Amino acid sequence: MEAASKWSKIVDGNVVLEFIDVTLRGCAQVMFQNNPLTGLLFFAAIFVGAFGEGNPAMAFGSVLGTVVATLTGMHLKDRTSWKAGLYGYNGCLVGAALPTFLAVTPILWLCIILGSVVSVIVTICIADILKTWKVAALTAPFVLVTWTMLLASYAFGGLNTSALPVPNLPHDLVAYNTSLFDGIDLFKSTFYGISEVFLISTVIGSVLFLAGLAVSSLWAAVFGLLGSLLAVLVAVVLQAEHASINNGLYAFSAVLTAIALGSTFNKPSWRVLIYTLIGVVFTVFVQGALNTVLAPVGIPTLTMPFVLASWLFLVPNKDVMPAHRQ
Amino acid sequence: MEAASKWSKIVDGNVVLEFIDVTLRGCAQVMFQNNPLTGLLFFAAIFVGAFGEGNPAMAFGSVLGTVVATLTGMHLKDRTSWKAGLYGYNGCLVGAALPTFLAVTPILWLCIILGSVVSVIVTICIADILKTWKVAALTAPFVLVTWTMLLASYAFGGLNTSALPVPNLPHDLVAYNTSLFDGIDLFKSTFYGISEVFLISTVIGSVLFLAGLAVSSLWAAVFGLLGSLLAVLVAVVLQAEHASINNGLYAFSAVLTAIALGSTFNKPSWRVLIYTLIGVVFTVFVQGALNTVLAPVGIPTLTMPFVLASWLFLVPNKDVMPAHRQ
Amino acid sequence: MEAASKWSKIVDGNVVLEFIDVTLRGCAQVMFQNNPLTGLLFFAAIFVGAFGEGNPAMAFGSVLGTVVATLTGMHLKDRTSWKAGLYGYNGCLVGAALPTFLAVTPILWLCIILGSVVSVIVTICIADILKTWKVAALTAPFVLVTWTMLLASYAFGGLNTSALPVPNLPHDLVAYNTSLFDGIDLFKSTFYGISEVFLISTVIGSVLFLAGLAVSSLWAAVFGLLGSLLAVLVAVVLQAEHASINNGLYAFSAVLTAIALGSTFNKPSWRVLIYTLIGVVFTVFVQGALNTVLAPVGIPTLTMPFVLASWLFLVPNKDVMPAHRQ
Repeated sequence: MEAASKWSKIVDGNVVLEFIDVTLRGCAQVMFQNNPLTGLLFFAAIFVGAFGEGNPAMAFGSVLGTVVATLTGMHLKDRTSWKAGLYGYNGCLVGAALPTFLAVTPILWLCIILGSVVSVIVTICIADILKTWKVAALTAPFVLVTWTMLLASYAFGGLNTSALPVPNLPHDLVAYNTSLFDGIDLFKSTFYGISEVFLISTVIGSVLFLAGLAVSSLWAAVFGLLGSLLAVLVAVVLQAEHASINNGLYAFSAVLTAIALGSTFNKPSWRVLIYTLIGVVFTVFVQGALNTVLAPVGIPTLTMPFVLASWLFLVPNKDVMPAHRQ
Repeated sequence: MEAASKWSKIVDGNVVLEFIDVTLRGCAQVMFQNNPLTGLLFFAAIFVGAFGEGNPAMAFGSVLGTVVATLTGMHLKDRTSWKAGLYGYNGCLVGAALPTFLAVTPILWLCIILGSVVSVIVTICIADILKTWKVAALTAPFVLVTWTMLLASYAFGGLNTSALPVPNLPHDLVAYNTSLFDGIDLFKSTFYGISEVFLISTVIGSVLFLAGLAVSSLWAAVFGLLGSLLAVLVAVVLQAEHASINNGLYAFSAVLTAIALGSTFNKPSWRVLIYTLIGVVFTVFVQGALNTVLAPVGIPTLTMPFVLASWLFLVPNKDVMPAHRQ
Repeated sequence: MEAASKWSKIVDGNVVLEFIDVTLRGCAQVMFQNNPLTGLLFFAAIFVGAFGEGNPAMAFGSVLGTVVATLTGMHLKDRTSWKAGLYGYNGCLVGAALPTFLAVTPILWLCIILGSVVSVIVTICIADILKTWKVAALTAPFVLVTWTMLLASYAFGGLNTSALPVPNLPHDLVAYNTSLFDGIDLFKSTFYGISEVFLISTVIGSVLFLAGLAVSSLWAAVFGLLGSLLAVLVAVVLQAEHASINNGLYAFSAVLTAIALGSTFNKPSWRVLIYTLIGVVFTVFVQGALNTVLAPVGIPTLTMPFVLASWLFLVPNKDVMPAHRQ
């Protein structure tokens, strides 16, 4: 705490340090934390994961995206949101996602810059709309901007879609004949569920992400980890594709739902716990549903399952919870 | 009237009877009626239709869904909505729809329970959002929850999609060369239009549904029946697929639009009648449009054409109608 | 100015002239102008283009649509909106679009009449919803009604889809190996971008459209023309399909975005200019994205890229601009 307040004082007097502080908070806000140390650990995790997967561009992209979005947000009236990093996190994700799915070319870097700028505009737009019902924009700006660019890449020869799923009509998945947990790596899939929030599969990175959460909010780390485990178990029982489960692809949205419903927008309690449980289980269904909906247009769901499920559960929050933090 | 007030007194003093009363009203609210006798007749119609089609699971599912949703709604603050059955009707439809399209397995029953619980949360969410424009949630919660689960069934080996339409790209329907009404059974298609609100094709059931409407509101029964007939006629003129017309699939959404616009949210008048007419005709277009949109992802429209068309016509209600009931 | 005030006086005393005046304004409002002379020039441009392309039905359709929508709007309470032509422009576009994509039959004319009536209801609906955030309905009513009917045409033998794109799954566009501007006609594509707002490719028509804009607002004409040019350049750099670029199909939405952001809802300034630039560039991405999304269902984007991009940039307007016209 004391270190934090010292840091605040140092930062306040220095434009460059303040900018770095806000950029770090921007990265931390991907998982709802307003804490520069969390952001530092998150960036470390991204670099570990990106270099581990041989895709350094996505690490640099995430830094570029956060910086551009933070720079854009500086020119707006709402300084409080800016200082909390709330204009930065969508740019961070845009910068991580585009090099994950598109070939790294000069046009791609321009797209990251444009996408990060637009992500700030979309953030204000959605926040303006949703404040009517006192709900946050979550990662919707990231998803909408990235979806737009990934979809557009099919129409533009200058953007190469090689890493996107091939557009196809949905087919029914045949049930596995073996026992449910055959071929499932429970440990890996749970941890990958955490790092896949940033589109990478890395155990060390996940530990860093959890550490980043823990220095800001222990509950957030606990809900994130348990949310991932629960989502994996639900996906196993429903017999989702094993490769997807093992890569954490049924868990990353659930991780965010768990943190949001369990610790960010509610104080932990039994009622909140049950509500979060239902929310996490339903997020897995939304994940499956969006996989089907997006199959014909060949784009990934990104964190949209989290966004939809959480909006669904956050709008009625005040009608369901006896008392809740604004 | 006297019987109704006697019933109210008996119910008020008894928790079990009250619960049954609210559950019945929940079923009745599928067609906007706040009346336990209507609900009883509706349930009777569902059982007649489900057993007639050899699919008893959908009848039991509709009871289970209504009960679970009513139980869930009991824990909320808004007792008035609960007592009117407004938390129950979406669960009723979820419970009827899932066994209609998915294989009956233990996981399916769990899905009905989860879907009914979530339908209550979605109901509050949508009602909260739409009260900004004084419009009701209609059956949107049912459609969204069921769509999610049906779409997810393509991704989950544990849910079998056998009764869903095979995903395919839309093809243009070739015009019929014979006279328009060749091969059309006007009587059956009109009556099936009413029972298909609950996803069944049954003439006896439709008579029971109409009786259920009539004991609560004669206008509702009249508008429902004429709405169905008009929708069939429009679909015939536009040359929709004969099998779909004959099964009432172009009429069931129009039935709900007609009751909603003509009798539930407006007092019958000439202006209302014209408005309802346009609404019913447009519902048939929305039905055709949604059939096309959903073809690539292999799910049915459910009552979404009704929801979209009615929202469209209900939001401007106060600007169009000289005076109207809240 | 004097001529305009004289015209106003003549019109006020004569029901027929007033109706003609409002109908002309309805056509002018497609590009946000409240001016009967603009409407006259626009209709002239439509007739030049439609007859030039051998599709006179779309010219007569646009007149019919504007007239029917204006007649419908007469019966509503809001006379100010009616007088400004704000109930007419969506009908104008419905009437132009349906004969462009569907075979000209008696049923088509009925669809134009129904679509124009419904476009007024959708206009009130969307305006009611969006006034919560002080944003206009733009051409969303036209797009939604026309999409509904075009999608429905796949399900109805009575509506022939021959001129619609064949539904197909998106394929990645391969980059061109030649220099970027090979095969691009910069002049034609920029001018077609303007006339394609009304779904026609005509240089003479575009000059008439620009003249129509200029008599009402010089800034609108400038922003429209430069918006078209910028959109073409962006599409060329991103390597969109040459045929689409040359037909102005990447520019027409951008034309409207440029006029809306640059001159209609903001007073021109440096900040506004930059904001509009970003908006126009992003509109090109939204155009590419919607092309991909709609490929499997075989309908054109119409002006939806403009609507989405402009809503996105107009909602945050007050947070971004130092001071702006309501």
